[in-house]
Amino acid sequence: MDPVVGPQADPSLDIPLAFSDPTYLAAVVDLLGAIAYGEMSAFERLAEDAKMAPALEDKVELAAMASREFGHFGALRDRIAELGADPFEAMQPFQKPIDDFHVHTAPRDWLEGLVKAYVGDGLAADFYREVAAFVDAGTRDLIIDSLEDSGQAEFVVDRVRKAIDADHRVGGRLALWGRRLMGEALSQAQRVAAERDALSALLSGGVDRPGMDLAAIGRMFTRLTENHNKRMDTLGLAP
Amino acid sequence: MDPVVGPQADPSLDIPLAFSDPTYLAAVVDLLGAIAYGEMSAFERLAEDAKMAPALEDKVELAAMASREFGHFGALRDRIAELGADPFEAMQPFQKPIDDFHVHTAPRDWLEGLVKAYVGDGLAADFYREVAAFVDAGTRDLIIDSLEDSGQAEFVVDRVRKAIDADHRVGGRLALWGRRLMGEALSQAQRVAAERDALSALLSGGVDRPGMDLAAIGRMFTRLTENHNKRMDTLGLAP
Repeated sequence: MDPVVGPQADPSLDIPLAFSDPTYLAAVVDLLGAIAYGEMSAFERLAEDAKMAPALEDKVELAAMASREFGHFGALRDRIAELGADPFEAMQPFQKPIDDFHVHTAPRDWLEGLVKAYVGDGLAADFYREVAAFVDAGTRDLIIDSLEDSGQAEFVVDRVRKAIDADHRVGGRLALWGRRLMGEALSQAQRVAAERDALSALLSGGVDRPGMDLAAIGRMFTRLTENHNKRMDTLGLAP
Repeated sequence: MDPVVGPQADPSLDIPLAFSDPTYLAAVVDLLGAIAYGEMSAFERLAEDAKMAPALEDKVELAAMASREFGHFGALRDRIAELGADPFEAMQPFQKPIDDFHVHTAPRDWLEGLVKAYVGDGLAADFYREVAAFVDAGTRDLIIDSLEDSGQAEFVVDRVRKAIDADHRVGGRLALWGRRLMGEALSQAQRVAAERDALSALLSGGVDRPGMDLAAIGRMFTRLTENHNKRMDTLGLAP
């Protein structure tokens, strides 16, 4: 794989001037590494949770989600390599926090797995979209593409709402579960922000780059929470 | 999904005259159901075995194989639906024998998983290619496409040979394992042949359709065994 691909190869893959700033380059590689490992571990988790499917049809839906995550992973890995970095080194710092998130939120049954797929992926997608606002257009497009959802979410909403209709106690249990997912995600995100200086610097900006001040970061968390609550509501769960 | 797609939609998806014979149609649906469930369960097994990967790079290779199997599954499922059958009903008769195969051949470590991926998929591919000779061109092309391998096999060969180089006892253990895989596969295939009349009839032919006599079936098994032995040899294992 070439470390750098010129604009003539594919206009979406050009390496803009911003990458001549090593701090910026490190931050983008960090960001892509985090998302790539997130997709890879989403693949693993969905494939694992698919085992709990009550019917082959349901298993196929989760396997389809898993395969799509893996497809996104491939695109992110290639982009990291194009930027001249080692994709596996770039992912390494995020393995522990993301693995820990999954260990702490291992679903006990099929419905918890569905809620996690929906709420967890939604939250991750929102966060990455927020961060994507601070990177170059090529990287941003790749990130946005990798967050695309092809309608599996509807399948989750349908199954969860039907389960709540059938037994209202399920709704209370899954609502608690959704809150726990949000709490664990925030706690791991905080850990990453504290440890990854380049990534944090990307969000807080620099002398020559706009960024977020503390108030803006607060507003971002408000938006993330609001969207999470909307998703819970869509599932028929109290936020 | 339309039960029947006309030739104008996609020339490879036309429904030839042969399908007006309900026995033939049932046999092809059976065959596609068997391969589809085989791919789906290969996805599951590879995703499961990926957990044993010694490094993230290895895990990614197995996840890539799993995702590709799932892609093939999708194409087979769609073809079954186009033939007017329910893909999940078509897969159902093969769930138990294929699941049993996997239960009886659960790898105990990463290397056994690699050998199983290589030897098992190779054997399945050989068998399906043999059977594909007896079906219409559209179905045959789909089957052949779904067997395409995109170089992951090289990765397996590399890892297994390196492991044997590092410790020769590994070779003896994996050679035994390869023989067990072949034995289990034959025993499950025999079970399927005994239970699925339409599928067996496809192989043995009809008044208006060429088929295999007992001698030809014997020769087919000889070919399957020879190819299996070649694969074992490629891996550096005594057949």
